Amino acid sequence: MDKAAVLGVGLIGGSVGLALAGRAGLSVAGFDPVRANLDEALDVGAIQTAHDDLADAVADAGIVFCAAPVGALPGLVAAALDATGPETVVTDVGSTKGALRESVLTHPESHRYIGGHPLAGAETSGVANASADLFDGARWYLTPDERSEGVLYDKLQRQIVAMGARPHAIDADDHDRLMSTVSHLPHVLANVLVEEADGISEVGPSLRDGTRVAGANPAIWPDIMLANRGALADSVESVAARLSEVAGWLRNADEDSIAAWQREAAAGRARLLGAGTEAGEPRQLRELRVLVDNRPGIVAEIALALGRASINIEDMTLSPAPGNRSGAISLWVLGDDNAEAAARIVRELGHAVTIASS
Amino acid sequence: MDKAAVLGVGLIGGSVGLALAGRAGLSVAGFDPVRANLDEALDVGAIQTAHDDLADAVADAGIVFCAAPVGALPGLVAAALDATGPETVVTDVGSTKGALRESVLTHPESHRYIGGHPLAGAETSGVANASADLFDGARWYLTPDERSEGVLYDKLQRQIVAMGARPHAIDADDHDRLMSTVSHLPHVLANVLVEEADGISEVGPSLRDGTRVAGANPAIWPDIMLANRGALADSVESVAARLSEVAGWLRNADEDSIAAWQREAAAGRARLLGAGTEAGEPRQLRELRVLVDNRPGIVAEIALALGRASINIEDMTLSPAPGNRSGAISLWVLGDDNAEAAARIVRELGHAVTIASS
Repeated sequence: MDKAAVLGVGLIGGSVGLALAGRAGLSVAGFDPVRANLDEALDVGAIQTAHDDLADAVADAGIVFCAAPVGALPGLVAAALDATGPETVVTDVGSTKGALRESVLTHPESHRYIGGHPLAGAETSGVANASADLFDGARWYLTPDERSEGVLYDKLQRQIVAMGARPHAIDADDHDRLMSTVSHLPHVLANVLVEEADGISEVGPSLRDGTRVAGANPAIWPDIMLANRGALADSVESVAARLSEVAGWLRNADEDSIAAWQREAAAGRARLLGAGTEAGEPRQLRELRVLVDNRPGIVAEIALALGRASINIEDMTLSPAPGNRSGAISLWVLGDDNAEAAARIVRELGHAVTIASS
Repeated sequence: MDKAAVLGVGLIGGSVGLALAGRAGLSVAGFDPVRANLDEALDVGAIQTAHDDLADAVADAGIVFCAAPVGALPGLVAAALDATGPETVVTDVGSTKGALRESVLTHPESHRYIGGHPLAGAETSGVANASADLFDGARWYLTPDERSEGVLYDKLQRQIVAMGARPHAIDADDHDRLMSTVSHLPHVLANVLVEEADGISEVGPSLRDGTRVAGANPAIWPDIMLANRGALADSVESVAARLSEVAGWLRNADEDSIAAWQREAAAGRARLLGAGTEAGEPRQLRELRVLVDNRPGIVAEIALALGRASINIEDMTLSPAPGNRSGAISLWVLGDDNAEAAARIVRELGHAVTIASS
């Protein structure tokens, strides 16, 4: 594969293009409904060819990135699947995955679509701010399912790695519940806190922190919330119920409950901050070699199992030729602990696995 | 008046002592139940005389500052009123005022008590961190009522000014409602958000901001919340009700309501940020979003460059995921001119920067 297409060349699409061209050595074709965006993308080298027509852009592309606002993604992904052949994997960079997957499932070529979501770059916009390094070290969620073709998943995740990111497979609905908590719910609470603070003339640090994302880009955030409305409504209702309980403690001057709750919140915050940090010393990449039946869904199954255990696949390669009934997967994870845990998990799925000596 | 007393010499009490001695030229007598605190306060010059006995400390003092945790204030204020004569004003530095005033009203000398609350210093503790400049430019709420003696109020507020702070009179209940919104409610929401995020392995910037004060000092925060439990319970219930409404919009895919709410939150956040600016300074806070390599020293480099250009950073937040090699910094400056100058400077340092649309 030496050609990729990027549909939508804003900050994310432009950065995808720069990373694909600069780091992965691909030629990138760009499509955007706004001609000025295409021109700017050409100028900064985010794309090598510019197209007003989607079909022209995706012609001969081995991989297609749809990088539009979430509301436009169902149509864009469907159009990309329509316009491409059996070797082409279509992905996207939207921040919610379940509703999009539902819409794509009705497409006869849905096995060639694998959802994606890089955790990067939401803070700025525009191709002028695009950077080949935007995804460097960033987690990039991929949401394969049982229909996903292993060869296409492999092709996609290898390009994600080549762009400097860390692919992480996750079930689409799990992804959306996670994003609800990590991102969408904090936005809802910030909005409500701003409403409570209407007319206030003195802003303390906790109010400032708590409202920082209130009213975030009104052109895109309503769509994001609505695209994830099921998981988000669950989270919001859960918080409302808990707040009613807290209000009850306050009304009853229930010192014990408030004190225990405050201590537990302190511990929870510490766990949360510890969550993303790497363990002390720099960990080594370890390679796992897995012998598998070469059946559809096998790659997704392994990737999801490791994702559920919060083990990042830093790199992966498949060595079965399509059509063979068995083959090998090599995958790399960071550190001995992750390698041992990953080997155990993959074994439990019924595959033979060895950890390559480093 | 040339003598003051400080009852409780932690961070706030110690800073009051340093400011009274260093800026207002008073001699400060200190009382603290912990002898080591008194010794340290003497060492750093926060008090000139140390007393194990409260009555000794307040003897001949024209003004007495009670600087203990809110749970201890009713007893401490009463003891100070008991031990002082008709010329002495007794105040405190507690963060809630209504419940304390209620308790003081039963004291025959309550006309000599005027509640106080400086907005400063909650982030550290201990007299070792005390500073004569802690209150410089800070708002200092005073809660006189119809019983308060005018001469004593005048004496108190002049010392507040001499310490470099800005006294601001407010009804005690209004103060508590304000603090509920400005401070206590954000702490409650942060705690609940941490509970929702239990088990999460990836912390985004909005979750980080939204949980920053979760579990704040469990030794003092339950008392603060309980001391303001009426106003706080009202706020918490108001938020719970609003969240139920928002959940309903999400369940019904009510795009119009969500979109209008997001726009209104954006406007509300802008009003809130504008609230802290001084009169006659009609400039708006502008947000710059900067993409950076996540390397040590990057924040200092940007802050120093803006400092050299005499551009004040009014607010700043970092959103690199731990372990990632790149991240985002949002910083807020006052006015369009500063925003454009800051953007130019940051760009010259080699970073991508945008000025967020307001």
